[in-house]
Amino acid sequence: MARWEPNARERLERAALALFVERGYDATTVAEIADRAGLTKSTFFRHFADKREVVFGGRDQLADRFAEVIRGAPPQTTVAGCLTAALESVARVFTPERQDLARQRRAVTTAHTELRERELLKLARLSEAIGAALRDRGVDDTTSRLAAEMGVLAFTTAFARWTDPGNDRPYTEIAHTALRDLRDRAGALGTEAEVSA
Amino acid sequence: MARWEPNARERLERAALALFVERGYDATTVAEIADRAGLTKSTFFRHFADKREVVFGGRDQLADRFAEVIRGAPPQTTVAGCLTAALESVARVFTPERQDLARQRRAVTTAHTELRERELLKLARLSEAIGAALRDRGVDDTTSRLAAEMGVLAFTTAFARWTDPGNDRPYTEIAHTALRDLRDRAGALGTEAEVSA
Repeated sequence: MARWEPNARERLERAALALFVERGYDATTVAEIADRAGLTKSTFFRHFADKREVVFGGRDQLADRFAEVIRGAPPQTTVAGCLTAALESVARVFTPERQDLARQRRAVTTAHTELRERELLKLARLSEAIGAALRDRGVDDTTSRLAAEMGVLAFTTAFARWTDPGNDRPYTEIAHTALRDLRDRAGALGTEAEVSA
Repeated sequence: MARWEPNARERLERAALALFVERGYDATTVAEIADRAGLTKSTFFRHFADKREVVFGGRDQLADRFAEVIRGAPPQTTVAGCLTAALESVARVFTPERQDLARQRRAVTTAHTELRERELLKLARLSEAIGAALRDRGVDDTTSRLAAEMGVLAFTTAFARWTDPGNDRPYTEIAHTALRDLRDRAGALGTEAEVSA
């Protein structure tokens, strides 16, 4: 039986991101991450398949969570209401205590071409997950696709603003503003003439 | 001096896509592509950096073309007008004569995980290119991002419908309909209540 390690996952995450920032993602080994966290390599592999999963495991959970919340929203909830509920549901991950981790994660993915591409793919999967969940509610295909892109844009905008060095506003407030802005722009794009007078 | 080969690029493209469909993308070599096209390997490499570029070269050209058309649109053109002009500008690539090539390309990318991921990345780059071109026109950042996603969705929807086996409508007509549908849905998403009554 493996010994139970309190907060092992978060300790590994913190150790890994600190090392990625200090030494670079490629130069950091799983052994070094486990060592920095005061845990063993086998504990690492109980929580993560590889070091890339430390960076992206959260994005996969995000897609699952968004889809679950959208599918589970009361029947009368509108599409915008579903997006709001999805964005709000992940607020417990984006707490002030985890802001430094999120900033490190952002710095690591931005600096590394392969991770940046992986991030784009994860966002494409997030969009697919939101779109599929909306279609399951009976929302038409075109609306589902567009709303999914709006959901991803609201999330990426909120995440970028929340992790901005000078920011002290909470994630939920930022996410609400981001979605509201996008919906305003969507309304304008829907009604403007093809060529203005 | 290299001998000038009439239509070498298109002959190589047709040979490559036919072979990718027949034998699979991984099993096809550049030598086989050149041979099927009745050309040499060095001619292949004058037109394409590698076999992946046969599949994706067109997507890069598309991003450049969209950005160029958006930047060059008359100053009074609205955002929707810019998207329409961009979508229309590539109609000369999506002609009835090239529909079989586009269908093969779609079949090859859909069947192959790495190519499907590469396609998603190319679409992310297309979105970035559209967004940057709109920002250069003075369009605000949020509208630029959202409109860029609408442009990509209009293009991918139009491309999928145009390459659909049963389709006989021209690309331009399909693209117009796709963008019109997206704008209608955008308008609705902009104005619906968060939770319907």
